[in-house]
Amino acid sequence: MINFALLGAGRIGGMHADLIAGSPEAILRYVYDTDQPSARELANKYSAIAVESIEQILNDDSVDALLIATTTDTHVELIIKGAQAGKAILCEKPIDLSTERVLQCWDKIKDCQVPIQIAFNRRFDPTHAGLKRQLNEGYIGLLQQLIITSRDSDIAQVEYLRHSGGIFRDMFIHDFDMFRFITGEEATEIHAIGSTLIDPDLAKISDVDSVMITIKTKSGKLCHINGARRCVYGYDQRIEAFGSNGMLQSNNPRSNSVSKSIASGTDSMSVLNPFFIERYQDAYRAQLDSFILSLMTDTPTSPSFTDGMMAQIMADAAQESLVSGKPVMLDL
Amino acid sequence: MINFALLGAGRIGGMHADLIAGSPEAILRYVYDTDQPSARELANKYSAIAVESIEQILNDDSVDALLIATTTDTHVELIIKGAQAGKAILCEKPIDLSTERVLQCWDKIKDCQVPIQIAFNRRFDPTHAGLKRQLNEGYIGLLQQLIITSRDSDIAQVEYLRHSGGIFRDMFIHDFDMFRFITGEEATEIHAIGSTLIDPDLAKISDVDSVMITIKTKSGKLCHINGARRCVYGYDQRIEAFGSNGMLQSNNPRSNSVSKSIASGTDSMSVLNPFFIERYQDAYRAQLDSFILSLMTDTPTSPSFTDGMMAQIMADAAQESLVSGKPVMLDL
Amino acid sequence: MINFALLGAGRIGGMHADLIAGSPEAILRYVYDTDQPSARELANKYSAIAVESIEQILNDDSVDALLIATTTDTHVELIIKGAQAGKAILCEKPIDLSTERVLQCWDKIKDCQVPIQIAFNRRFDPTHAGLKRQLNEGYIGLLQQLIITSRDSDIAQVEYLRHSGGIFRDMFIHDFDMFRFITGEEATEIHAIGSTLIDPDLAKISDVDSVMITIKTKSGKLCHINGARRCVYGYDQRIEAFGSNGMLQSNNPRSNSVSKSIASGTDSMSVLNPFFIERYQDAYRAQLDSFILSLMTDTPTSPSFTDGMMAQIMADAAQESLVSGKPVMLDL
Amino acid sequence: MINFALLGAGRIGGMHADLIAGSPEAILRYVYDTDQPSARELANKYSAIAVESIEQILNDDSVDALLIATTTDTHVELIIKGAQAGKAILCEKPIDLSTERVLQCWDKIKDCQVPIQIAFNRRFDPTHAGLKRQLNEGYIGLLQQLIITSRDSDIAQVEYLRHSGGIFRDMFIHDFDMFRFITGEEATEIHAIGSTLIDPDLAKISDVDSVMITIKTKSGKLCHINGARRCVYGYDQRIEAFGSNGMLQSNNPRSNSVSKSIASGTDSMSVLNPFFIERYQDAYRAQLDSFILSLMTDTPTSPSFTDGMMAQIMADAAQESLVSGKPVMLDL
Repeated sequence: MINFALLGAGRIGGMHADLIAGSPEAILRYVYDTDQPSARELANKYSAIAVESIEQILNDDSVDALLIATTTDTHVELIIKGAQAGKAILCEKPIDLSTERVLQCWDKIKDCQVPIQIAFNRRFDPTHAGLKRQLNEGYIGLLQQLIITSRDSDIAQVEYLRHSGGIFRDMFIHDFDMFRFITGEEATEIHAIGSTLIDPDLAKISDVDSVMITIKTKSGKLCHINGARRCVYGYDQRIEAFGSNGMLQSNNPRSNSVSKSIASGTDSMSVLNPFFIERYQDAYRAQLDSFILSLMTDTPTSPSFTDGMMAQIMADAAQESLVSGKPVMLDL
Repeated sequence: MINFALLGAGRIGGMHADLIAGSPEAILRYVYDTDQPSARELANKYSAIAVESIEQILNDDSVDALLIATTTDTHVELIIKGAQAGKAILCEKPIDLSTERVLQCWDKIKDCQVPIQIAFNRRFDPTHAGLKRQLNEGYIGLLQQLIITSRDSDIAQVEYLRHSGGIFRDMFIHDFDMFRFITGEEATEIHAIGSTLIDPDLAKISDVDSVMITIKTKSGKLCHINGARRCVYGYDQRIEAFGSNGMLQSNNPRSNSVSKSIASGTDSMSVLNPFFIERYQDAYRAQLDSFILSLMTDTPTSPSFTDGMMAQIMADAAQESLVSGKPVMLDL
Repeated sequence: MINFALLGAGRIGGMHADLIAGSPEAILRYVYDTDQPSARELANKYSAIAVESIEQILNDDSVDALLIATTTDTHVELIIKGAQAGKAILCEKPIDLSTERVLQCWDKIKDCQVPIQIAFNRRFDPTHAGLKRQLNEGYIGLLQQLIITSRDSDIAQVEYLRHSGGIFRDMFIHDFDMFRFITGEEATEIHAIGSTLIDPDLAKISDVDSVMITIKTKSGKLCHINGARRCVYGYDQRIEAFGSNGMLQSNNPRSNSVSKSIASGTDSMSVLNPFFIERYQDAYRAQLDSFILSLMTDTPTSPSFTDGMMAQIMADAAQESLVSGKPVMLDL
Repeated sequence: MINFALLGAGRIGGMHADLIAGSPEAILRYVYDTDQPSARELANKYSAIAVESIEQILNDDSVDALLIATTTDTHVELIIKGAQAGKAILCEKPIDLSTERVLQCWDKIKDCQVPIQIAFNRRFDPTHAGLKRQLNEGYIGLLQQLIITSRDSDIAQVEYLRHSGGIFRDMFIHDFDMFRFITGEEATEIHAIGSTLIDPDLAKISDVDSVMITIKTKSGKLCHINGARRCVYGYDQRIEAFGSNGMLQSNNPRSNSVSKSIASGTDSMSVLNPFFIERYQDAYRAQLDSFILSLMTDTPTSPSFTDGMMAQIMADAAQESLVSGKPVMLDL
């Protein structure tokens, strides 16, 4: 059994608490949050202990792992403390909005030898993972092009987005990780353009809501990512892999399978998942299972801290390209 | 080159004239119709000769084949005359509304040794024929059940239907042939129920507009046919073959492939073909090609006169079952 | 909160225990099974009490409801005892293999005034229920025809099926209930044919494995059910409703949404659910929620004991038709 | 009736001859080709006159229109001669590989007042045109993003491609026109990257076979085009329009609609059209009809000479971006 302390009792934290409680291999021991009532409420629900200070957790030798789901600006400090206390870590993305701070974090923990996993949950989604597996099994020969569609169901307030680090670090970091996961290569060139077509107020904070990104890899593979902050028909997340022998598509799952045929045509009437918690429910569960399995079998966790760092560097490059209007070359 | 005389210059006749004219292996020599203006108009369009009497056609040795597309009650007489004059015959279904007359017809022509093909055009439809081919190739193992959906787009006037021979002889004769084509067996038992759910006036002529038929074959295979005289979303014609190793479905082709995703769901917006001439255009062409190829290579035509007779016997049995309320046993 | 006693700790019982434990409105108090180790193991898992005798449950006033998931031959006795003790009852289908015993049961409990719900879980399946809702909302006008496809993924041993009551009572009782649920009418005529195409040994116990059923309602609606005991591509459960203004189809949900396009065509690669527990997981949960809600709001449970009885009478009629080879008339 | 002279008796010329002959409003008078046997064979097939010199055509007042389907390097000369002789012109794309020569051509013909249409046939494809129509009707609100997939079924020999003007002018000129057709705007910025992933020998002629293009419009709309010279599963041509209220997708039509469900999943087994002549057959016909209708009703032809010029300028910009590695700004 793996004993968990959950750091962060917000919406995502609540989901993680539920998954830990539902796992036959995990126990939720502690819930920490700077907001005490939230911590207490969540802890009570799962018979865990709510704590005001992280030290109590770090000093409890029975705690095997931290699940970090606090606000982004606290991740680095908590990772360092946890790693130095010898705890395994599963940390929500992004590690930090500043790549410099991510690198500094790495310097301080790289010798700690604790398992660290970054929560790129989409790698564990059954359809995305199914596409990757079939690609690996050679169904479509050599991969040549990758097209990723990434549309959020709705946009947050400008005030919230002001502190998000910009659309590339906040939203597309998942897609940069998907690019690396599917291609198995690093980017050598990134080009990004964007517009404010959904909320013009974003211009005030120098951000955009509609984006197209082009990426080239060392071996010449081509990748395109398109994204938008609002998609009225639901959370639209698709991946298309085109190769020398065919194409694989990871399409959106549908909420039901009723179809209607009337004089004007045939309507599937089924809608997409409203947002990421519903869409990636199975992925979140499989991510936790994978982390637990790594701890129990003493095998490396994945995606790693380095994976988190690499996606961040790509986000920085995309942001730079958006501002400069030119492609950014990378040598990773 | 095969020289054709077309008997019947109505809507179906017009379509056949067009197909003959478009075939590189066929020439339209004559058009015959009791309605002279129709015959002349059609003949002029394709530089053929309009005739008032069929004798001129029968006496012209250059005529190889008759395509009979006149009203049903004239088929038998024209088949007999044509066969006795040594002409090959492609005759629209049904041969006649009376099975007795069909059998008498057979007695008179069976020694004539002319190729006769009955126009069960659906056998030549690319998707239905594709299903049959894959079934033969063993993709789904042994066939166990067959489900045929057969819905016309709209119902004719009661006055017209009064002379149609009833829904089984008029409309489902095609489906009975499909049953024989797909299973490769004869029926041993037929049960039919029906209702007037579309046009209550049909009750006045003791006919129905909504039908369900169940058929059993010698080897125990089960077949269901459902049909309706009106289907608001278009001409719905599907076949499902279920076997020991899987299922094949011949679905409706779609008129276009645009889809629309909005907040309420995803709509294909594509409609079915309006009716049989559009739906089975390729099938009608392939049927003519097959007839011509049989003549040119001196191989048997198919479906044969016997196929036409067998479908008719099934239609009679279904009608008898509808009236009696009991299954009808057959020993064919 | 509703306090439950679970009767029956087999596979289905285990699933129900899990659903009760997972419900925020329910508590699992007791687990009863004649097999004590099974009862204890299941009770321990959910901190419930394992009992050897049902009397302890009936005498405990804190128990609100019984969930009956024992073998079919014990249902009637348990229902009677439970009802007379004033417990609400959610009972697995079928009530009994003998309609006579079902009627006797009804005589004994009809004055008890306890809520009774029969576990026709498919009524709660999101796609089937969605079809019914859209039908009620008038999307396709008046219902004219109903086509139900019901294929189990695999067949049980003949020895097990010997005591199943025959394919209609064991397997199609669900489909008869679906017929009543969707049409909102009673059957006036049932015709059934069957074959042993999957396991010839079924003939020894006078049962069949492949079936086609035709049903007519008072208003003349037509219904077809086809079914098979083995379907290699998974658990195939579809409903098609055809009406004056269109068609609704409840299609199979898919396990994932990856598609593969290669030279030979496009393959969805997604498989159907393996069997009913996976396919109807959401339906089982919604069924329990509906039962609990009825108890908490003091509203009638549905589907009712009468619904259970009606489906049984239809199964008897289908069995009679199979044996006699003739349609059976009903006046319900 | 419109009297046509066809210039060019190659494969595309043959298709156009067939369409002209099949049109009830058109007559094929002349066929011209520098290869006399080809011209004669095609002319004979449709009872037209084969000519060695274009002058005979230009001097015949009965000729209303030229359909130019000769090699690209002859287009400009033939357009100028035809326009100066007062003939209406339907010219295959591209006008010329050199935008300079296209501009010079325009200078010479702009005062001739003859109708000129450039053969961007995809505008007339039922699904692409259906998408455009629904976009215009406001189904998805304001267009924000456009994604075009454009994959040829197979690549030509390097020797042939050496004279093609490069992948952007030869292949993507159609997609640049689609971009303009769908968005109704001009590009302000074009960025292109490419690789030789299919035929490495293309590097010898400084060309690529795999391409991703990003385009921004004046109003900030974003467009992505991806393309490849070889696609093993057929000719893959899709358009996705994403807007403020939804998404429209123009998907590939399928050659048939048989599907197969077996233990490993469900396979549509239907393949895409092999290449453009099959895929865009209806589009070519509708294009001719539109040209003829414009002549008969004295309304402007579309797409115009200017449309042809604009697509060419975009192709030049994409080529420049590929070589320079930087986006190219346009002010059109």
